Amino acid sequence: MQQDAHAYRLAEIVQRFGGELLGDPDVLITQVATLETAGPGHISFFSNPRYRKQLEHTRAEAVILTAEVADATQRARIVCKDPYAYFARLSALLNPPSAVVPGIHASAAIDASARVSPNASIGPGVSIGARCEIGDGTLIEAGCVLGAGVRVGSQCRLYANVSIYHDCIVGDRVLLHSGAVIGADGFGLAWENGRWNKIPQIGRVLIGNDVEIGANTTIDRGALDDTVIEDGVKLDNQIQIGHNCHIGAHTAIAGCTGIAGSTRIGRYCRIGGSAMIGGHLVIVDGVEISGGTTVPKSILKAGTYTSLFPISQHRDWLRNASHLRHLDDLIGRVRELERELTELQGHKK
Amino acid sequence: MQQDAHAYRLAEIVQRFGGELLGDPDVLITQVATLETAGPGHISFFSNPRYRKQLEHTRAEAVILTAEVADATQRARIVCKDPYAYFARLSALLNPPSAVVPGIHASAAIDASARVSPNASIGPGVSIGARCEIGDGTLIEAGCVLGAGVRVGSQCRLYANVSIYHDCIVGDRVLLHSGAVIGADGFGLAWENGRWNKIPQIGRVLIGNDVEIGANTTIDRGALDDTVIEDGVKLDNQIQIGHNCHIGAHTAIAGCTGIAGSTRIGRYCRIGGSAMIGGHLVIVDGVEISGGTTVPKSILKAGTYTSLFPISQHRDWLRNASHLRHLDDLIGRVRELERELTELQGHKK
Amino acid sequence: MQQDAHAYRLAEIVQRFGGELLGDPDVLITQVATLETAGPGHISFFSNPRYRKQLEHTRAEAVILTAEVADATQRARIVCKDPYAYFARLSALLNPPSAVVPGIHASAAIDASARVSPNASIGPGVSIGARCEIGDGTLIEAGCVLGAGVRVGSQCRLYANVSIYHDCIVGDRVLLHSGAVIGADGFGLAWENGRWNKIPQIGRVLIGNDVEIGANTTIDRGALDDTVIEDGVKLDNQIQIGHNCHIGAHTAIAGCTGIAGSTRIGRYCRIGGSAMIGGHLVIVDGVEISGGTTVPKSILKAGTYTSLFPISQHRDWLRNASHLRHLDDLIGRVRELERELTELQGHKK
Repeated sequence: MQQDAHAYRLAEIVQRFGGELLGDPDVLITQVATLETAGPGHISFFSNPRYRKQLEHTRAEAVILTAEVADATQRARIVCKDPYAYFARLSALLNPPSAVVPGIHASAAIDASARVSPNASIGPGVSIGARCEIGDGTLIEAGCVLGAGVRVGSQCRLYANVSIYHDCIVGDRVLLHSGAVIGADGFGLAWENGRWNKIPQIGRVLIGNDVEIGANTTIDRGALDDTVIEDGVKLDNQIQIGHNCHIGAHTAIAGCTGIAGSTRIGRYCRIGGSAMIGGHLVIVDGVEISGGTTVPKSILKAGTYTSLFPISQHRDWLRNASHLRHLDDLIGRVRELERELTELQGHKK
Repeated sequence: MQQDAHAYRLAEIVQRFGGELLGDPDVLITQVATLETAGPGHISFFSNPRYRKQLEHTRAEAVILTAEVADATQRARIVCKDPYAYFARLSALLNPPSAVVPGIHASAAIDASARVSPNASIGPGVSIGARCEIGDGTLIEAGCVLGAGVRVGSQCRLYANVSIYHDCIVGDRVLLHSGAVIGADGFGLAWENGRWNKIPQIGRVLIGNDVEIGANTTIDRGALDDTVIEDGVKLDNQIQIGHNCHIGAHTAIAGCTGIAGSTRIGRYCRIGGSAMIGGHLVIVDGVEISGGTTVPKSILKAGTYTSLFPISQHRDWLRNASHLRHLDDLIGRVRELERELTELQGHKK
Repeated sequence: MQQDAHAYRLAEIVQRFGGELLGDPDVLITQVATLETAGPGHISFFSNPRYRKQLEHTRAEAVILTAEVADATQRARIVCKDPYAYFARLSALLNPPSAVVPGIHASAAIDASARVSPNASIGPGVSIGARCEIGDGTLIEAGCVLGAGVRVGSQCRLYANVSIYHDCIVGDRVLLHSGAVIGADGFGLAWENGRWNKIPQIGRVLIGNDVEIGANTTIDRGALDDTVIEDGVKLDNQIQIGHNCHIGAHTAIAGCTGIAGSTRIGRYCRIGGSAMIGGHLVIVDGVEISGGTTVPKSILKAGTYTSLFPISQHRDWLRNASHLRHLDDLIGRVRELERELTELQGHKK
């Protein structure tokens, strides 16, 4: 699918990334592929034991694997400690981002007071507000809209139809996928006299370096202080981050997760998809949260946390669910049994 | 609300779609409506028993219903086996999609190498990249952005502000609603030396024929191989489909559901809203999943599956939830009771 | 962050909004801030007891608080019954929305039959369809698309990249955040002969006055009748509202909540984030639903409702979850214990 794949000899690859090469050093690698679909010029990797069969039958030109399984194929192979990480770096080499062609499309609307690097690329229909600053090598695709005072660093990529509200700040090498909305108003309301009064949201969103933000993910601006996404954070699609949240460096969050306002999540956390995290909580560094888990209170100790109702066939679920409603009654019956048994035991003595 | 409703005599309708007509064949039908709001020229349908009262009092010109209830109204009526399906076809006849006026709006940015059918309609501000192909009778509304190499078949409709990344392929008669994002990067990361390395996502999204994709739904491109949506799949709004998922033909998924990467869902499945389906799973043909259910493992047998914690008033929930935390203790108490009772019974003998 | 903060003396503020002033009436207030970050010219508020320490150490020029804690600081202070509501009104005074500069950007595509108030502001790349009407003082930011026949009232604000489908109606003083999609087709399908037939969605979306709709929230048009959002409703980000829902006045719904079709929610409800509400339900006025709760049936009595599986460390969850699967067995064991104990007691007598 990539238009301009590069080609490297296995010897060059090992020289660049390390690992032990078993097989012909002159094999030419043009692309990465799965064990199952790989063919001529392709290199694959093996890290999940359940694909063992596919390793044995792969037609990949070469395979990246660990020493433990180095004998499972006679294909050329690179032996290393972490095949998946090795593969990631090699794939990045073989599939560099497409070159950014500098220039501003004629249909873009750039405010006269904005400063756009001459090395940036601004697509059709982009709107850039007053006082914005766009860094070197940054690509802003068609339909993106940046409010007044937005700063985007260098080597960023904003895919089509991203919206950034006024005064938000984006670091370097940040990827924002289509439909992402950065800096919309947080959900700040005060109830008075039978109606909601809106609280102006005067904070910003500050996004660090090397952050990736998925399609249709939304990050609200702060109510008073700023919402902060630290360096290296990775957010999947359709995530909602409330106002004044603070997401620590190198934390990764899978799709559809919602985080209510003013919650502080530590560094190096891994949060599964469709999780729901309440507001005003603290989650410390290194916490893992299973997909689908609801977090109604702070987590002050690293570890893995879960809150799933186990899935079952619907008829079994109906029975279990009805039992759940009567747990209190069941406990009363056990207590009564204990009382009567003690009484009986007393009689016996 | 429709500007140009058509009109058909009941006799024409029955001739076209079948069913038995009771009442005046010359009654003119111009629109469908609910039993409650129907008036002159309207036809309604009855399929849900709890609207029986409304059937009795409806002012619809005619009603579609089954033989069992054919006597419940004296209005003109069409008797058939499946009133809802009948109604669907009749409504489609009365409410055809608005005609597509061919042409390219002056503000659209179409790459010189793209091939747009002369019968297609391209709206204001649309951006179409290099080598794209757009089929006959396809309508692309304002603000849509298609990356390089995208192919969209014939008779499709892309509503406003849809984004399709490079090289994705869309079949014929596909509806993509506003804000949908097709082909954004999957969440592919490798952890190494205290940071995440991005894995280039070099697969595509392949969408079959007769697919409908809801507003703000996101479908990620494959990491290595493609993400596949087969013919006739219907996706509601705000669904997230991870990289390398495969959704079988004629499966329908309700809103807000998230499906993690590399999961394969069979054909003819029905998945409720706000479900969460884990990654690398297999779900076979004909599975139904209740709304709100989390699926952490494969489902290899057709049937209906559920995982909901039953709702209750908050104070009751507090008590139940606290019992849940002590289930282990409760089981220990029951085991102890069993032991002591056995001992007592031994004494007695 | 705000460019043109206003300034008021404390005396002026109390004259305008009430409350008792303790301290120098001539202190000049230019902005609101949190207790922790406030500095010269800032006023803060105290309503959450856990920030007591911050109250004692604040450097705010003045603090809004209740009589009970009026002695906890010697800073200038405004004593009132509801500091948060007071703060909301004061913040709105200090941070008025930026002025709307009337005019239509040259790159906007406005159908000749549309009527746009001369006091409205239409941004770059906006597309406005046939017969639309846009009221006084309404701001429509870049990239918004309005289908034919859409009516938007006065003093509204549509942020960048909002999509409104044909014939929908929006009241006065409505805020629509970026990526919101109003009036996409509902998920209306009829199963027949092994495939889904689409049911034309011919209703509209009707949005009342003073409504706020968050980023990437979607509200589907009605299938036959209209979907209705009453006055004063506040919707956070990434909410999905199905066709023919009816949301009562002044109800507030937090982010990521999904509401299936034809459900009627009362007035003054408060619904937490990531809730999931089934279709064809009735929820009466004044119901509160906890975040993360699934609502599979109607709620006919005001109160607070919850359905969360309690979170725990993963290893504890594994044990609890496995017990849940055997609740039926446990209940059988308790019943057997009761039977045997009764028998023993009979022997004893």
